[in-house]
Amino acid sequence: MVKVGIVGGTGYTGVELLRLLAQHPEAHLEVITSRKEAGMAVSDMFPNLRGRVNLKFQDPAEAPLHQCDVVFFATPNGVAMLQAKTLVDAGVKVIDLAADFRFKDIPLWEKWYGMQHACPELAAEAVYALPEINRSEISGARVIANPGCYPTAVQLGFMPLIDAGAIELKGLVADCKSGVSGAGRKAEVAALFSEASDNFKAYGVAGHRHLPEIEQGLSRRAGVPVGLVFVPHLTPLIRGIHATLYARLTKEVDLQALYEQHYANEYFVDVLPSGRHPETRSVRSANFCRLAVHRPQGGDTVVILSVIDNLVKGAAGQAVQNMNILFGLPEATGLQQIPILP
Amino acid sequence: MVKVGIVGGTGYTGVELLRLLAQHPEAHLEVITSRKEAGMAVSDMFPNLRGRVNLKFQDPAEAPLHQCDVVFFATPNGVAMLQAKTLVDAGVKVIDLAADFRFKDIPLWEKWYGMQHACPELAAEAVYALPEINRSEISGARVIANPGCYPTAVQLGFMPLIDAGAIELKGLVADCKSGVSGAGRKAEVAALFSEASDNFKAYGVAGHRHLPEIEQGLSRRAGVPVGLVFVPHLTPLIRGIHATLYARLTKEVDLQALYEQHYANEYFVDVLPSGRHPETRSVRSANFCRLAVHRPQGGDTVVILSVIDNLVKGAAGQAVQNMNILFGLPEATGLQQIPILP
Amino acid sequence: MVKVGIVGGTGYTGVELLRLLAQHPEAHLEVITSRKEAGMAVSDMFPNLRGRVNLKFQDPAEAPLHQCDVVFFATPNGVAMLQAKTLVDAGVKVIDLAADFRFKDIPLWEKWYGMQHACPELAAEAVYALPEINRSEISGARVIANPGCYPTAVQLGFMPLIDAGAIELKGLVADCKSGVSGAGRKAEVAALFSEASDNFKAYGVAGHRHLPEIEQGLSRRAGVPVGLVFVPHLTPLIRGIHATLYARLTKEVDLQALYEQHYANEYFVDVLPSGRHPETRSVRSANFCRLAVHRPQGGDTVVILSVIDNLVKGAAGQAVQNMNILFGLPEATGLQQIPILP
Amino acid sequence: MVKVGIVGGTGYTGVELLRLLAQHPEAHLEVITSRKEAGMAVSDMFPNLRGRVNLKFQDPAEAPLHQCDVVFFATPNGVAMLQAKTLVDAGVKVIDLAADFRFKDIPLWEKWYGMQHACPELAAEAVYALPEINRSEISGARVIANPGCYPTAVQLGFMPLIDAGAIELKGLVADCKSGVSGAGRKAEVAALFSEASDNFKAYGVAGHRHLPEIEQGLSRRAGVPVGLVFVPHLTPLIRGIHATLYARLTKEVDLQALYEQHYANEYFVDVLPSGRHPETRSVRSANFCRLAVHRPQGGDTVVILSVIDNLVKGAAGQAVQNMNILFGLPEATGLQQIPILP
Repeated sequence: MVKVGIVGGTGYTGVELLRLLAQHPEAHLEVITSRKEAGMAVSDMFPNLRGRVNLKFQDPAEAPLHQCDVVFFATPNGVAMLQAKTLVDAGVKVIDLAADFRFKDIPLWEKWYGMQHACPELAAEAVYALPEINRSEISGARVIANPGCYPTAVQLGFMPLIDAGAIELKGLVADCKSGVSGAGRKAEVAALFSEASDNFKAYGVAGHRHLPEIEQGLSRRAGVPVGLVFVPHLTPLIRGIHATLYARLTKEVDLQALYEQHYANEYFVDVLPSGRHPETRSVRSANFCRLAVHRPQGGDTVVILSVIDNLVKGAAGQAVQNMNILFGLPEATGLQQIPILP
Repeated sequence: MVKVGIVGGTGYTGVELLRLLAQHPEAHLEVITSRKEAGMAVSDMFPNLRGRVNLKFQDPAEAPLHQCDVVFFATPNGVAMLQAKTLVDAGVKVIDLAADFRFKDIPLWEKWYGMQHACPELAAEAVYALPEINRSEISGARVIANPGCYPTAVQLGFMPLIDAGAIELKGLVADCKSGVSGAGRKAEVAALFSEASDNFKAYGVAGHRHLPEIEQGLSRRAGVPVGLVFVPHLTPLIRGIHATLYARLTKEVDLQALYEQHYANEYFVDVLPSGRHPETRSVRSANFCRLAVHRPQGGDTVVILSVIDNLVKGAAGQAVQNMNILFGLPEATGLQQIPILP
Repeated sequence: MVKVGIVGGTGYTGVELLRLLAQHPEAHLEVITSRKEAGMAVSDMFPNLRGRVNLKFQDPAEAPLHQCDVVFFATPNGVAMLQAKTLVDAGVKVIDLAADFRFKDIPLWEKWYGMQHACPELAAEAVYALPEINRSEISGARVIANPGCYPTAVQLGFMPLIDAGAIELKGLVADCKSGVSGAGRKAEVAALFSEASDNFKAYGVAGHRHLPEIEQGLSRRAGVPVGLVFVPHLTPLIRGIHATLYARLTKEVDLQALYEQHYANEYFVDVLPSGRHPETRSVRSANFCRLAVHRPQGGDTVVILSVIDNLVKGAAGQAVQNMNILFGLPEATGLQQIPILP
Repeated sequence: MVKVGIVGGTGYTGVELLRLLAQHPEAHLEVITSRKEAGMAVSDMFPNLRGRVNLKFQDPAEAPLHQCDVVFFATPNGVAMLQAKTLVDAGVKVIDLAADFRFKDIPLWEKWYGMQHACPELAAEAVYALPEINRSEISGARVIANPGCYPTAVQLGFMPLIDAGAIELKGLVADCKSGVSGAGRKAEVAALFSEASDNFKAYGVAGHRHLPEIEQGLSRRAGVPVGLVFVPHLTPLIRGIHATLYARLTKEVDLQALYEQHYANEYFVDVLPSGRHPETRSVRSANFCRLAVHRPQGGDTVVILSVIDNLVKGAAGQAVQNMNILFGLPEATGLQQIPILP
């Protein structure tokens, strides 16, 4: 049994981690911390967990995190970088669901996240862990940077084309749509039901933190800098990301075969038959990414459609997948629930 | 392994049955039939099942239903009563998710359902199976009448008070709200997104088929006829029923203790602590019923709040629960998934 | 032209007042105040008003409210009672959309609102203004207490039966459902999209501030104390209240005729033909109340269905209706827009 | 007073036309036809119109359409082309909200719409009427082809750049998102609440009928063929289209100034200040288009965000705008309602 601790956990990635780990056959929830909610039963905050998670939030100062095998940080950006070092030094694996360890370029991180990085050496060591891209680097890591939600959907979508060298690497377009849970369980006017429902809008067109994260990932894979226009939108779903990706082909390639072969052995990535359109609900509450590839009117623009559940493959599910890899468990352990439809 | 067949299965109770049974450790899906969709892969209709359910819909005439241990009817009303007899005679257990076998009073059934009953003898034999009420009758049954969604939420809510003899049995009020999936996966204008979203309305106030079903259940338990006003409403959820129940107390009783004791040993019924309000999402996609009991202003009216997922405890989940009982399996087998929140 | 000022106006009743008044042929928006947003263009906060409302929020200390003919308070509870006196003394009419002047029983108000009342004499003088009930008292008033949203829907629903002396006055039940905009444009977790959508729940069953307001109104009309059980629910709509009302008949009465006659001359109250169910969207964005009356199974319980838009007839629209009465304008001036459907 | 007839009118563009025309100070609704619903009161189908529209649907064979000044066709594709000729010959103006007269290239129309065109000569004569683009052609027309919803949002978005000759005309991308009302008030499974809510998907990537319509419009303006990739998506709104448009700049241009100047005199087109993101709800129920123009990271890709209400500026509102032009009325007559927010 892997002994698990969670720091934070009062947000949506937190409750999702709790749901997945409480049903995981090889993990045991030992401790969960929250400074603000210390003493509160987790199931009083999240009634879906009644009878299944009997933990209370503990004050971080008193929580025995060092006795865990792995600690997940489901905290705002800037928290894990303050606490990870002592855990790592104590032999505890760290999986950060926030952005603290995602960038190799620290000044770039500091520019986009608006704060000084407290632990550049762990950022340098950390593995940016998207298993379908760099599984082999993950197993020995001490610190896991769990990818962002948009970056997961976009990188899985573009990767086969980049590996095939089949597209212009400048002028990629990622037109992405996210459900509102991506904004977190924070009291903000813009995420109110009466603001976000029956409404659709773009945001952050001038610049969103996931842009450099995606560019870093694609560029590393391509071996040269990749140029991306990334336009995120808010859509009235609870869960789900739909990435619509555009690239210009530079050579002829059997797109359907390329995608099917690329992901033939990936349990969590499903390439739909030709001509289909993945729906976000087809992955709701599950760790899958479904992809379709199109070439409208036979022109030179390829269109990839990529869907994930932002809280699962885009956050908590991928974190558990990474935990499975870290501890040598079969990668799909505890992650095989069928998506909920309707 | 219980060998399972499904008749119908192109609707929402069908896909939910498929989801639950595909993950059930003691059941094996053998066959699913649909006259209209014969030949189509189930996962082409329901992409959440891709990679998990490899069956195709078969023409009922050719489907080996008689080789199953149990056959679920996820069909419109009036279908199971035509086909159940030959299955039962062949030793196959039948679980009907529709209403064909729910009434003992056949003329009453014929009045509300507007057709002649084709198999009164099986209706007489069938067990109306709400396990928390009549578990002991279920295990030996050949034909299971799976209760309706509203009747499940309402009966579980009223039952402790009826058993305690603590309320007036005339003038009960059940003000119920259902998500739109309760209307099924049928192409009807009233269930369109543009009709049902951002909208709330009552329907069927003059008379709804679940009224006599609830009255039958409550009256049988009370031993005398019970009088109920039942007002269903359509609310813009996909899944969920919220029953708000009103009754007048006839004697003093510790309501909280009454409910907690009544359901102390029921895995699927959760009585919330005093003063709480259950949310439909706290049971989303799971087989639980959560209840709260209130006595506003200390007056003589008791208010019970009861929530279920109409597709799970209100349909497919309860059907699987009944299957578990029929085959001597632990009752919660395959039904322990934690509800999805948010 | 009526010169209009608004205090507050950064919430949903504020933007709705602005929308209605900007299109009102006999009103002119002079000033709007907000301490927090002083200097911000109203249309930067509410882009639907771009090109139509050119005001900026002004600091209350500098705003020429005394030069207005009427000032609307679209503020939290407890604000109007501090500021109304000097306006009234200056000859300015005051219409409070909050609860400060709704109660005649000041200790009762203080108990439910949890603060000391700052201006009991204006509360004593103020007219609780629900035009279809007490139109004649409104025209000469100096201070208007605009009714709450639930109280408007419930009182309009019960009033014909109370006037007819046809029901038991104890044991009335008001099972009410509100859209989320009723919670205001405040950053609160419970009103987030990811909390409130695809979810349904009751709240405040133990006691809600609108309970004593409704009881005050019904009791005054009945001439004796009325006993009510009031259960509000939150439903995933932006706008709309649906009140489902239950009462026990004490004498035979032609319910349909009673309602039609009672409201025959009311422009804003629409009694539907027998057997119908009003939808909240049928009044969306408009000042109407639609009612239907049912007697299920011919029993002794009457069921009234009452729908309004909580932001219009339940708040800003009714406030403008009251302004029209105060200034001798035709009552429907500026309030004749057809509801938006779908 | 313009005497108005409507053919069809049982769909969403129909009810929206009725709402707008019933409030139009210079129009009078004379007749509305529906073969299927003949005899039914319009307000029984659309209760928002109770007390405001007293017409009944008439059988087309008996309806005095020839006595109208203008007849709107709110019918499926293929109806207007059968009936327009006799009306035009009788001196009645025809405004078709469907696609029958939108294409100059009849074989192209026949390919995309899958039927033979019944009236090519009227298609040749008809004016494709998007007032902000070709106002001058509209006033003398006998037959108006009212543009599609996506084509309106996309053409208004791209037009300033095309006029300025500032972009590559090959490889334009229009990533568009539509509310579900765009699918009409037809009983179809894909448009059910339980299918379309809490879900997001692309559709018609291989080819959508609005693609050639947009290409025709842009190419005509550009003077050369324009190449477009058009990807429509279904998003869980009732109303609203959000077009996210991508083009590559070929020369330096002050984008903000270009857009502001281009639309400086257009009442219905609102260019937002630099850096903003228009929301669909900011135009809900109104005839406006709001635009914003971005140049992310200062690169060579320009991103235009364009929102309309698909039922108003994308259908019924634009049709009334065209009627106003046809009859020499001020163009905004009856179209000045402020959008509904929230």
